[in-house]
Amino acid sequence: MKKIVLATLTSIFSLIVVAQEIKSPDGNLTLDFAVREKGSPGYKLTYKNKEVIQWSKLGFEIKGDHHPFDRDFEIVGTEQSQFDETWQPVWGEVKEIRNRYNQLFIRLKQKATDRELMIHFRLFNDGLGFRYEFPLQDSLIYFTLKEEKTEFALTSDHTAWWIPGDYDTQEYNYTKSRLSQVRYLSKDAVDYNVSQTPFSDTGLQTSLMMKSDDGVYINIHEAALIDYPCLHLDLDDKDFILTSHLNPDAQGDKGYLQAPCKTPWRTIIVSDDARDILASKLVLNLNDPCKIEDTSWIKPVKYVGVWWEMINGMSTWAYTDLPSVQLGITDYAETEPNGKHGACNENVRKYIDFAAAHGFDAVLVEGWNIGWEDWFNKSKDYVFDFLTPYPDFDMKALNQYAHMKGVKLMMHHETSGSTRNYERHMDAAYQFMVDNGYNAVKSGYVGNMLPRGEYHSSQWMVNHFLYAVTKAADYKIMVNAHESVRPTGLHRAYPNLLANEAARGTEYEAMAGNSVDHTTILPFTRLIGGPMDYTPGIFEMDMSVHNPENESKVSSTIARQLALYVTMYSPLQMAADYPEVYEKYMDAFRFIKKVAVDWDDTRILEAEPGDYVTIARKAKGTNNWFVGCTVDENGYTSKIDLTFLDAGKTYMATIYGDARDAHYKNNPKAYEIRKVAVTNKSQLSQKCVPGGGYAISIVEVDKSQLKGLKNYKPVGS
Amino acid sequence: MKKIVLATLTSIFSLIVVAQEIKSPDGNLTLDFAVREKGSPGYKLTYKNKEVIQWSKLGFEIKGDHHPFDRDFEIVGTEQSQFDETWQPVWGEVKEIRNRYNQLFIRLKQKATDRELMIHFRLFNDGLGFRYEFPLQDSLIYFTLKEEKTEFALTSDHTAWWIPGDYDTQEYNYTKSRLSQVRYLSKDAVDYNVSQTPFSDTGLQTSLMMKSDDGVYINIHEAALIDYPCLHLDLDDKDFILTSHLNPDAQGDKGYLQAPCKTPWRTIIVSDDARDILASKLVLNLNDPCKIEDTSWIKPVKYVGVWWEMINGMSTWAYTDLPSVQLGITDYAETEPNGKHGACNENVRKYIDFAAAHGFDAVLVEGWNIGWEDWFNKSKDYVFDFLTPYPDFDMKALNQYAHMKGVKLMMHHETSGSTRNYERHMDAAYQFMVDNGYNAVKSGYVGNMLPRGEYHSSQWMVNHFLYAVTKAADYKIMVNAHESVRPTGLHRAYPNLLANEAARGTEYEAMAGNSVDHTTILPFTRLIGGPMDYTPGIFEMDMSVHNPENESKVSSTIARQLALYVTMYSPLQMAADYPEVYEKYMDAFRFIKKVAVDWDDTRILEAEPGDYVTIARKAKGTNNWFVGCTVDENGYTSKIDLTFLDAGKTYMATIYGDARDAHYKNNPKAYEIRKVAVTNKSQLSQKCVPGGGYAISIVEVDKSQLKGLKNYKPVGS
Repeated sequence: MKKIVLATLTSIFSLIVVAQEIKSPDGNLTLDFAVREKGSPGYKLTYKNKEVIQWSKLGFEIKGDHHPFDRDFEIVGTEQSQFDETWQPVWGEVKEIRNRYNQLFIRLKQKATDRELMIHFRLFNDGLGFRYEFPLQDSLIYFTLKEEKTEFALTSDHTAWWIPGDYDTQEYNYTKSRLSQVRYLSKDAVDYNVSQTPFSDTGLQTSLMMKSDDGVYINIHEAALIDYPCLHLDLDDKDFILTSHLNPDAQGDKGYLQAPCKTPWRTIIVSDDARDILASKLVLNLNDPCKIEDTSWIKPVKYVGVWWEMINGMSTWAYTDLPSVQLGITDYAETEPNGKHGACNENVRKYIDFAAAHGFDAVLVEGWNIGWEDWFNKSKDYVFDFLTPYPDFDMKALNQYAHMKGVKLMMHHETSGSTRNYERHMDAAYQFMVDNGYNAVKSGYVGNMLPRGEYHSSQWMVNHFLYAVTKAADYKIMVNAHESVRPTGLHRAYPNLLANEAARGTEYEAMAGNSVDHTTILPFTRLIGGPMDYTPGIFEMDMSVHNPENESKVSSTIARQLALYVTMYSPLQMAADYPEVYEKYMDAFRFIKKVAVDWDDTRILEAEPGDYVTIARKAKGTNNWFVGCTVDENGYTSKIDLTFLDAGKTYMATIYGDARDAHYKNNPKAYEIRKVAVTNKSQLSQKCVPGGGYAISIVEVDKSQLKGLKNYKPVGS
Repeated sequence: MKKIVLATLTSIFSLIVVAQEIKSPDGNLTLDFAVREKGSPGYKLTYKNKEVIQWSKLGFEIKGDHHPFDRDFEIVGTEQSQFDETWQPVWGEVKEIRNRYNQLFIRLKQKATDRELMIHFRLFNDGLGFRYEFPLQDSLIYFTLKEEKTEFALTSDHTAWWIPGDYDTQEYNYTKSRLSQVRYLSKDAVDYNVSQTPFSDTGLQTSLMMKSDDGVYINIHEAALIDYPCLHLDLDDKDFILTSHLNPDAQGDKGYLQAPCKTPWRTIIVSDDARDILASKLVLNLNDPCKIEDTSWIKPVKYVGVWWEMINGMSTWAYTDLPSVQLGITDYAETEPNGKHGACNENVRKYIDFAAAHGFDAVLVEGWNIGWEDWFNKSKDYVFDFLTPYPDFDMKALNQYAHMKGVKLMMHHETSGSTRNYERHMDAAYQFMVDNGYNAVKSGYVGNMLPRGEYHSSQWMVNHFLYAVTKAADYKIMVNAHESVRPTGLHRAYPNLLANEAARGTEYEAMAGNSVDHTTILPFTRLIGGPMDYTPGIFEMDMSVHNPENESKVSSTIARQLALYVTMYSPLQMAADYPEVYEKYMDAFRFIKKVAVDWDDTRILEAEPGDYVTIARKAKGTNNWFVGCTVDENGYTSKIDLTFLDAGKTYMATIYGDARDAHYKNNPKAYEIRKVAVTNKSQLSQKCVPGGGYAISIVEVDKSQLKGLKNYKPVGS
């Protein structure tokens, strides 16, 4: 009898739990889960009573599996819970982050194979996160994924801002199109990159930003990518279903897993207000709390560097013009310098002087170490040692000089993708940094990977990138990794990961160019996962001024370059242009000098992907605000309320705007600076020209201070 | 006019140098080089006026090349020179090694592509070494090899002792056959191994031992394999041409080269006396001199270990029976021990006591560190940390105990093929050894490699194995690497590489078994490249005595097990059997206790591959000799002259021989020990039963010492 009763109970239980539903704390979002036809697990997401994600399948394809792992499941357990906490990031856009969600935990069983699979849903006010968990069970411990089979079934042919799916790079301009157009536009969307592996003409990268015709914004990404391949998406452009496409390894396999284990979170941020997408902390909230006990050494950084001149082709990373060098064999003391080496003592001192004069924290120096003569595209294993300076770079003297002036040098570790070599030298290289007084490194992974055949975004490399960050933390070193896998909020757990590149940065403005609307899209896509070292602050837009052979032009006004320090959130901000250029525009440069790199509060004032982004941020530990606005090729008149200011106080706003006749194409350097008194009741209207924008610094003042002001005009008060 | 004159000169010059010939110092070997049909470089080797290697082609196939790099060459320079030096190895079979050769250096040019290739021939009395050199030249700096095209064109269908070509393992029994039979026997020659990639039914490994019908012994191998893939051979079994087949990487590519660079040496040892093959120092001579300045810490080692009992299945490497563990997560203190863990304090102390009682230098302990529960065949990345002992292994106390007794523990680093993980932990693991008083490590690479798809013998792994040895030298640690690429004499330059496995060792006697003649072949094949950790000394031949479930039997008599300490040269020798077993045969065990592990002189007394090997060695810094003889399944009566002894002196020889009724199959433990007085005029005749052999220790004595001797019988004097 007992057995029968139990069976009945289970059966009833199964019926009961066939469908599960939770709502977001504010009730706007509804998540449904059910096991559907053929025992296939599925979920559905509804926003304000409209479906955002239709019934979508979940599951896996396991290598060599005898039974597909995406069907024949039944629910054997469910659990609902609530969570609400507020936490403080070590650095960030806001002082405190609220992590509040309703949770649904599902335990599934594939009876035929005696295997369980668990799915964890967290429903926030701003979206959904879910991940799979594999419990420890005899029937499935070690396994290799052929594919994750997670669907995101969209309701219609949305507009998307996308870059093509690629195993190696995200350094593409974004394309805005209907999903149905992706297939036809993908070829044009792939332009040349030094290491690229686009995988399909309907492959897309995350974070993917979309908008429905009825005005719902949907962002799909992932959080906490650890020891698992990067998530890409395959688009079914008939039914508008996106399916997970994991980044393969050199063998064509995907993840190597050992239970118990968890996948990264799959995230869907949803709102009918685009500003909510930018304000979302969902990805951070889904990451682990800080794993570094003492974080006192982690500080946001504003820096200049010996770099843009190399990008321009005016100086070189390499010390000589030798066609081939071998570390430990090539005797640099005996070689003829090429006379164009950027990282020479004299030039570095110039940058140190400039940094010290203008209050920058650090000077990045690229090309300081031997090996740059043949570093690229040679599949060279022992390409750098990260320890030996070129003869004209006096490591000790330059660091002493910098420290004397209150500035730090910033280390540069280009790996050329030779990751075994980097890991072999990593301890010594970090220790060398400590010994010489460096506390931050920019690392690079340009070109194809070693181990050969491995991709930038495979599980192998995902593991490496985090290894480099955790190792750096052991030495109290902050990391800014370029050409890495794109971020997924890991800086919550590892805040010494200050920033990544992992998108098309300013450097392309000196090469193939960036789309004019690029900086209005990045906050909706690349920045969803974490800060980017975008290296803004270019004032001389015409590259041929430096190098007659380079006809590239930066598609931006100077005013917009200033705005990027606010709109492109990062605790690491570079002033990328030449000191000599800044000397010519000291009034505009003043904004870069003054702008904060860490914040107590952030308000997204205006936002539409591909059109404009206007953000106000309150500098850490002050009552000062900074505002930035970047707009697309059509220009835009920004209208903002300053309600975020304290009531009853008066502020002086210094507005760095486009001149009336400015234009990114033919008059990018025309800007106007005006000062106005403002209060929390002020409204500002500021015209941005095509490719333009503006930046504002807002400082609390006594009314008396305003009196001497020439342009004194109280606005809206 | 000038141009024409120059052209004529070049042309005359070309004619002059079309063929080049050098002879070995003793005149027995002749090497001819010429550029032949279609500008293909070729060489020929003649021994005592008989061709050993017929005209054979040289060259390369370069990936993506526009012009094959094995033809259209002309000679643009030649140089002949002589060399003669004598050097002292840090440890070895002899005190001094003479390195004497005549050298031919050829500079070739492929005019159509403006590329040069250089070939370096060194002709010794005992054979030929040659290698390619790529000079620095604009037209060929970075390149990837599709294949090396080196031929060894044999004169006939020789008899060969061979193992199948395999990218991952050499752990096979040898097959003796005509070359023409290889194709038909290769399937049977491949038996199961945990990581194996046989590549062809006519693929062969080096060192390859052959014998012509007219009695010339030919051995083909390589020397100084550094940052290049391992050399295998493809057999053309119609024309009996062997062609180089380099070990590919995971991508199917072979070597990644940067000029200037050199390939390893290709070696051909030749003699009409098989003993000369064993006596040859050609491979060592072609390696670089010692690169370690202070070698005072490098000492040959005789050791016992907690190992054979795991091989037998009587104890386990793992501490628990958990199906899955995760380092740093699994709490071993909370788990239930399986009660069979070999590396527990009590058992290790037993081995320490035994080692101390019998004068051994070290005790190997395998399975001391966490992670063994699921170490194998899981493609597990973070499989070991090389730092954390199991709860029942008291690292500090055991080392103190051992050191107090004058014994060292020997470290064990099984990597499970997860080489990135090993390299990540290498510095810490070596430092941990230093901190705990270890000075030697046995490393292992069981199973498939990580990076996944990589082979044990690819360039990537060749690089890793040497990296592990050079890193170890930084910490004054000696290395014994198992499952590595097979050695090529690198222990001359890096004498802290004491030994390798890289062949089928004694462990297989407890599993699938070794051929009875295995130890008569290994000296002609595997040992040509360097010492092997063969782990002899098994006295209990019947595994079922320990473990009723194991029906394996060692195919050897006890007397032969003793002989192996002399015939299988290694500065690292294990007494592999249980202490309890040795306690039963203390008279025979006495030989293992007494036999030296370092030598001032070596005489190959009798040798025929596959039949018998008899070797006499003079212990380092003494006047004592040890003789060993190992024979095949047919038995053999060894007859040796003791002319190597000092004239006018008397010695006492203790002979450990097979009993008359001994047999490897049914009576392997029957041995007889007799003592005889001998001089340099003595002749010994000693019968070896099937699978038998003998060992002799010869100690100089006063005649008075012989008087009390029971069996005193002067032999041949």
